[in-house]
Amino acid sequence: MTMLDVTADADLRRRAARVIPGAMYGHMNAGRLPAGMPQYFARAQGARTWDVNGNEYVDLMCAYGPMVLGYGHPVVEAAADAQRRAGDCMSGPAPVLVELAELLVATVAHADWAMFAKNGTDATTLCLTIARAATGRRKVLVARGSYHGAAPWCTPSPAGVTDADRANLVSFGYNDLASVDEALSAAGDDVAAVIVTPFRHDARREQELATPEFARGLRDRCTARGAALVLDDVRCGLRIDIAGSWEPMGVRPDLSAFSKAIANGHPIAAVTGVDALREAATKVFATGSFWFAAAPMAAAVATLTTARDTNAIADLTAAGEQLRQGIAASAAAYGLGVRQTGPAQMPLLTFDGDTDFRVADAFASATARAGALVHPWHNWFLSAAHTAEEIDRALAAIDAGLAHVSATFGSG
Amino acid sequence: MTMLDVTADADLRRRAARVIPGAMYGHMNAGRLPAGMPQYFARAQGARTWDVNGNEYVDLMCAYGPMVLGYGHPVVEAAADAQRRAGDCMSGPAPVLVELAELLVATVAHADWAMFAKNGTDATTLCLTIARAATGRRKVLVARGSYHGAAPWCTPSPAGVTDADRANLVSFGYNDLASVDEALSAAGDDVAAVIVTPFRHDARREQELATPEFARGLRDRCTARGAALVLDDVRCGLRIDIAGSWEPMGVRPDLSAFSKAIANGHPIAAVTGVDALREAATKVFATGSFWFAAAPMAAAVATLTTARDTNAIADLTAAGEQLRQGIAASAAAYGLGVRQTGPAQMPLLTFDGDTDFRVADAFASATARAGALVHPWHNWFLSAAHTAEEIDRALAAIDAGLAHVSATFGSG
Repeated sequence: MTMLDVTADADLRRRAARVIPGAMYGHMNAGRLPAGMPQYFARAQGARTWDVNGNEYVDLMCAYGPMVLGYGHPVVEAAADAQRRAGDCMSGPAPVLVELAELLVATVAHADWAMFAKNGTDATTLCLTIARAATGRRKVLVARGSYHGAAPWCTPSPAGVTDADRANLVSFGYNDLASVDEALSAAGDDVAAVIVTPFRHDARREQELATPEFARGLRDRCTARGAALVLDDVRCGLRIDIAGSWEPMGVRPDLSAFSKAIANGHPIAAVTGVDALREAATKVFATGSFWFAAAPMAAAVATLTTARDTNAIADLTAAGEQLRQGIAASAAAYGLGVRQTGPAQMPLLTFDGDTDFRVADAFASATARAGALVHPWHNWFLSAAHTAEEIDRALAAIDAGLAHVSATFGSG
Repeated sequence: MTMLDVTADADLRRRAARVIPGAMYGHMNAGRLPAGMPQYFARAQGARTWDVNGNEYVDLMCAYGPMVLGYGHPVVEAAADAQRRAGDCMSGPAPVLVELAELLVATVAHADWAMFAKNGTDATTLCLTIARAATGRRKVLVARGSYHGAAPWCTPSPAGVTDADRANLVSFGYNDLASVDEALSAAGDDVAAVIVTPFRHDARREQELATPEFARGLRDRCTARGAALVLDDVRCGLRIDIAGSWEPMGVRPDLSAFSKAIANGHPIAAVTGVDALREAATKVFATGSFWFAAAPMAAAVATLTTARDTNAIADLTAAGEQLRQGIAASAAAYGLGVRQTGPAQMPLLTFDGDTDFRVADAFASATARAGALVHPWHNWFLSAAHTAEEIDRALAAIDAGLAHVSATFGSG
């Protein structure tokens, strides 16, 4: 197997180690990935990306979600460029803010209003604050292991987090209504909200779809208690259903948090809510230096309208199905026991018995060498730019990755 | 006095009222401003901005800080455009991340390392989390009334905030070392950090410069206690001293939070820190969907190098001095008792006895009608695009505003 040239990437990592703690931080820290996977990228276009050594990949990570229509999508970039040339970060919003709020209200099934921020964490935190302001209550139910952002109340790292930061959280098990009822009992009459992801996409474990009973059960319990049902649609938004990720199950939240894909990579987050929470939302001081910037809003309008008018979600779902079938065929051919979990458009591949992800690491690294970018323990993402030809190309790389696994670890 | 055309702005406000709680949120909510001041902006260029009705203003708000070199600065925009065409939000950072971290370490006096985020609130929160991770302590000293962001621990609105969100804060008075000592005693051996703004720029009151004794006193006390001194340079950064806003006083923090101006309006925040806190910074999970995006980093490199190589801070300070002298002369001519507080490059004008800001409201509204954008109770901002001619033009509008105040409220 050929080795990739990694000179430029290695040089950058050495320079970074001097001026960035641990050489990198956060979810894109390649220090958490197996050796040989790229840290630094030179460019991206459509479904492809190129690392700083010039190696080309079919990118099945999609910037960890934000890219949904393809990198450098011409309609989105033209809209953002035109707005930026007029004005982006000004002393107040541009008209596109109203246009985007109207579009979300028309598109997201439960939405009567919208507000905008920058990070997914901004949006999830704002949802909880609005729910608390509305109810005058403090407790929030959160599923164990669910990622809702990187603020002290929700970060997966305990470093620097105090007990007070989480004093008002009560945990339950995903898809486990009995545990929800226990949590509700523990919280008594002080429950402001339940926050939940559309499916269980926790890192370092198999993904798990929400059962309709679970989704409806949360909805019924929140309604009965006068608590807000908050759907954290940051990671899933615009990949499952443009009207909201639980809309196919007919379950509508009171508040939704969106970010990542809604502007195809331009920085924006959104909270949508129902009329009953409008008054509370006016009382919360929600703001940031760049929250009114117009170019990402123009990009969001272009992304949402393009997704709506081109059946992008159907296309990327079909791409995910093609990928899933191809992986299953390859794995079977090598006699490898694998699991493919989560929705096809946000897949994860795990290997039987691979509790420490050693096999997954070897697979991801070998697949990168063969020209496709995947992750060993975080879900991947499909986009509308992943045509059948791009998926075929990705599958060839994945087949090489599976061949490496078979050769290294044996089958079964 | 002529009335501005407000038709388009009013139409947008009516549409917004249906789809945005309270029609607008946050610090750019014109609902908090006197009638007649614009909410929606069509474009901005250099030191000027145009509202959606076509009214033109010399913009003394600079997007509430982010604009420091002029709207649409060609060098900054070219750098951001070039990076964006290659790749912006990708599946990992671009080399410009390392370049920017190296530049900050070379530029900010105390900085041994840097990390990047999106919001000022991200940066201040991250500073506290790193300080807590480093010390294993919980308490943070915060000046009463200081704005450090919009998260539950620091937002000025109590709506939806729980006692637990602030359980580990201990307050002191700005420029009051005796109150700092009281707060330190109350916190005992559990002090992780003191967070402070470079000067007192709280809204709805006169601004107040930090005394050298106060700054040095905080530095000495943090050193003696093994607590981190955190400088919240989000609002002041790149307007007072490129090496950090307390560098002219020779006081170096352990951690600094930057955002707003460092990329001339492109969305980015930064934390810089000393080596002693590097290890702790590696343990905190600091991340966001767009925190690795490359275009704002390219904009930051261009902004910082341009500011360094063109004496931008000296220029915008001179513009502030010209403005201050012109305002003083106009106010004296009308016999108006006014106070101009804070550094010249981030000025605030208040009127004697105007405790409810009724006079300031009338002034800001009349000044807008005459063609300059100022704020009745939040500091203004100068930029390097505010040439002597732009300041002359702004002063003509301000003179009209002061004439209106004199005619409406009388003198003295």
